[in-house]
Amino acid sequence: MDDIRFAVLGTGGIGRRTLDVSRHKDGLTAVAACDRNGVAIDHDGLDVDELLEATEGNIASGPQSGPDDASGSTPATPTDDYASDGGAAAVEGGGVKQHGEGAGVVASEQGEPSETPIDDIIAESDAVDAVLLALPNLEHDFIPRVAEHFAAADYEGVMIDVLKRSRVIGMLDDREDLLKASGITFVCGAGATPGFLTGAAALAAQSFVEVEEVEIWWGVGLKSGYEDNRGTVREDIAHLDGYDIERAREMSEAEIEALIDEHDGVLEFHDMEHADDVLLERAGVCDAEDVHVGGVLDVRSDEKPTTTTVSVTGRTFDGERGTNTFELDDATSMEANVNGPALGYLKAGVRNNRAGHYGVFGPADLMPGF
Amino acid sequence: MDDIRFAVLGTGGIGRRTLDVSRHKDGLTAVAACDRNGVAIDHDGLDVDELLEATEGNIASGPQSGPDDASGSTPATPTDDYASDGGAAAVEGGGVKQHGEGAGVVASEQGEPSETPIDDIIAESDAVDAVLLALPNLEHDFIPRVAEHFAAADYEGVMIDVLKRSRVIGMLDDREDLLKASGITFVCGAGATPGFLTGAAALAAQSFVEVEEVEIWWGVGLKSGYEDNRGTVREDIAHLDGYDIERAREMSEAEIEALIDEHDGVLEFHDMEHADDVLLERAGVCDAEDVHVGGVLDVRSDEKPTTTTVSVTGRTFDGERGTNTFELDDATSMEANVNGPALGYLKAGVRNNRAGHYGVFGPADLMPGF
Repeated sequence: MDDIRFAVLGTGGIGRRTLDVSRHKDGLTAVAACDRNGVAIDHDGLDVDELLEATEGNIASGPQSGPDDASGSTPATPTDDYASDGGAAAVEGGGVKQHGEGAGVVASEQGEPSETPIDDIIAESDAVDAVLLALPNLEHDFIPRVAEHFAAADYEGVMIDVLKRSRVIGMLDDREDLLKASGITFVCGAGATPGFLTGAAALAAQSFVEVEEVEIWWGVGLKSGYEDNRGTVREDIAHLDGYDIERAREMSEAEIEALIDEHDGVLEFHDMEHADDVLLERAGVCDAEDVHVGGVLDVRSDEKPTTTTVSVTGRTFDGERGTNTFELDDATSMEANVNGPALGYLKAGVRNNRAGHYGVFGPADLMPGF
Repeated sequence: MDDIRFAVLGTGGIGRRTLDVSRHKDGLTAVAACDRNGVAIDHDGLDVDELLEATEGNIASGPQSGPDDASGSTPATPTDDYASDGGAAAVEGGGVKQHGEGAGVVASEQGEPSETPIDDIIAESDAVDAVLLALPNLEHDFIPRVAEHFAAADYEGVMIDVLKRSRVIGMLDDREDLLKASGITFVCGAGATPGFLTGAAALAAQSFVEVEEVEIWWGVGLKSGYEDNRGTVREDIAHLDGYDIERAREMSEAEIEALIDEHDGVLEFHDMEHADDVLLERAGVCDAEDVHVGGVLDVRSDEKPTTTTVSVTGRTFDGERGTNTFELDDATSMEANVNGPALGYLKAGVRNNRAGHYGVFGPADLMPGF
C-alpha cells in the first residue's frame, strides 16, 4: 500500500499514543495534529519524537470550570465546541497541560496557536488520507458533527474514531449520505472494545451459522496510565450501577477519587453500553441483545485484574454447539490494544476509501462477512 | 448487502458443504454448480436440497487410472483438465460417484451432462457475483489456469479458493494484471488454514508492533468424514516426513490405508507447507519463516485429537512481549471451520469487488492492516 498520510485530532492519551505507535508502523506518516489551542502541520511528516516530548503531560481530566459549562454548550460548529473553554476539554483527547505557558501542541516547535484548529486541518485535508478523531465526545453528537464539518468541506478520505457508546453509531448512520457524497469512509468504534474485540467476535463467529451469545470481558491495569486516562475512567464510571453519563460527567475529581477509594481501586462492570452490540448487529453477526460487555478496571496496579477474552457461542451447520475464544495476553496493555487496532482499522479504511468504498463502517464490517 | 449469486466449481466434499452451509446464510444464492460430467444452472437459485441429496456419495478419492495418468497430462485449458478422466478427479471436489449411472451433478434433476462444464458456467457468468473453486489441484497451476480462463472471458466478480499450498499464491500473483484487467477479485487460501486461522493471526497481531512468531496448530477428528475427505488426507500425507506431493499422489488407496494403520489412525504434522506463511508475509504481518503450521489428524475418531489454536507472539509498542491466542471449540468440525469462513471471505470479496477493488487477496489482506 502506498504511504498513508494521517492527521490526529486531539493530543490527549489516545492521540499521543496513536502518534507513538505509528512510529513503529510501515507506511504511516503523521502530517497533522491539533488540540484546542493549536495545530501542527507538516506534509513531509511531523517530527513525532519532538511533538510527543513537547506535549508530554497532556492530560485527560475532569471538568475545569464546573459541570454547567460542561453540559451547557451546544456550539454551532464542532470547531467552536472544540475550541471552547468548556467541558469539551474534560475528557480524553481534549486535555492540555494544566500548568505553564504554551501547553499542548503549541509547546512543540512545530505547533502554531490557532483558534480554529480543526478548520486549519480541514484546509489542508486534500493532502490527508486519514483523520483519527481522538476528541472529547461528552455530547453524543460531537464526533458526528465533526464528520459533518469535514463533509461540508468535501474531504475525501478516511475518518476513524475509537468511540465506545452505542448510540453514536446511529448518529453517524444518519449522516451516511452526506459522508458518501463527500467521499468519506468513516470507521467507527475502532479501538479495543469496540474495535479489536468486535472484530475478533466477528471472526470467531465464522465457525457458526447462528451466533447465540458474544461475551466480551476485559481487564485493565491502569496504575501508571491512570493520569493519562482519567477521561476514559470517567466514561467507564458511567457504566456502574446507579450511574449514567450525565452523572459521571458532573462528578468532581474528588468525587471520583472517593468512589475509587470505596472500591479499593478496582471497579467491575457488567452489561456496559459498548457499541460492540450494535456494531455486531449491523454486520449481521447476531442481535445486539446477545452481546454482553463487561470487565474489571484496577487503577492501582499495572497488572490486569482479569484476562481480556472474547467468547462467541454458536451453532454449526452440522448441528454442534461450541464456544470459540480469543484471548489477549495479560502483558498487552490497554494502550497497545487500542492504538494498534485503531491504526490497523485506519489502514483497512484507506484500502476501502481508495477503492471508492464510502460510508459508515464498523470493525465487523471490515471482517469476513457473516 | 445485496444478494450474492454464487457458483461452485466442484461438488466433492468442499463444494457440497459450501452449498450446505449457504442454506443457513442470508444473502447468498447458489445459482450454478458443476463437476466434471455436468452442470446445473438456475439464475433464480438452485434447489440446493435436491442437488445435495442427488449428489450424496460424491467422493474424493485416489487415482482411478493409475499414477501415470494423474501426473502426465498438461491440458491446454482448465476445462480440458477438469473434464479429463485422469488424475484431476483424484482429489477433493473432483470426485463423482464411483458406481451407477448418472453420478454427480447429472444425477440431479437440475443437472445437464456437459463436456465443458466450466465453460458453461463462464458463459453465464454475467449473472454470477462469485465463484468458489472447490476443484482438484494436483497440478500446482490448475487453479491459476482456471482463473485465467475466467479472465479471458472478461468475468467481473469474485473468485475464491481454499488452497493450502504456498507456491500457488505466487502463481496467482503472476496473473494479477490479467485478473485486474478483467475485474476479478481473487481471494486465495480462504478455508480453515490457510483462511480462518490466517485471519485470526492477522487480527491477533494487532496488539503488537512486531510479530516474532505465529503458531497454527490444528486438530481434526475425521472418522465419519473420512470418506468425504480422502483427497484432503492425501494432501496432508504429503507433509509427513519422507513424503512430498508427488509421492502422496502416486500412492494407491491400499498404501494410504497401510500408512494410516501404521500410525493407528493418528497422523501428526509439523512445519507443513501451508500458505498461511506467505499470506501473512504478503500482508506485512511477519516473515513467512516465522509462521509454523502443524496439527494432528485422527481418522478413527470424530473427537479432535488436539485443540485448534492460533498463537501470535510479539512485542508491543510499550516494550512488553506477549502471546495472544485464538482457540476453536473442539465441537466445531473441520467442515464448519472451512466452509463458514470460505463463505465469509466470499462476502468480503464481493464487498471489495463491488467497490472496484480487483486483484489477488489473501485472508490477511481482508483484515485490519498491520
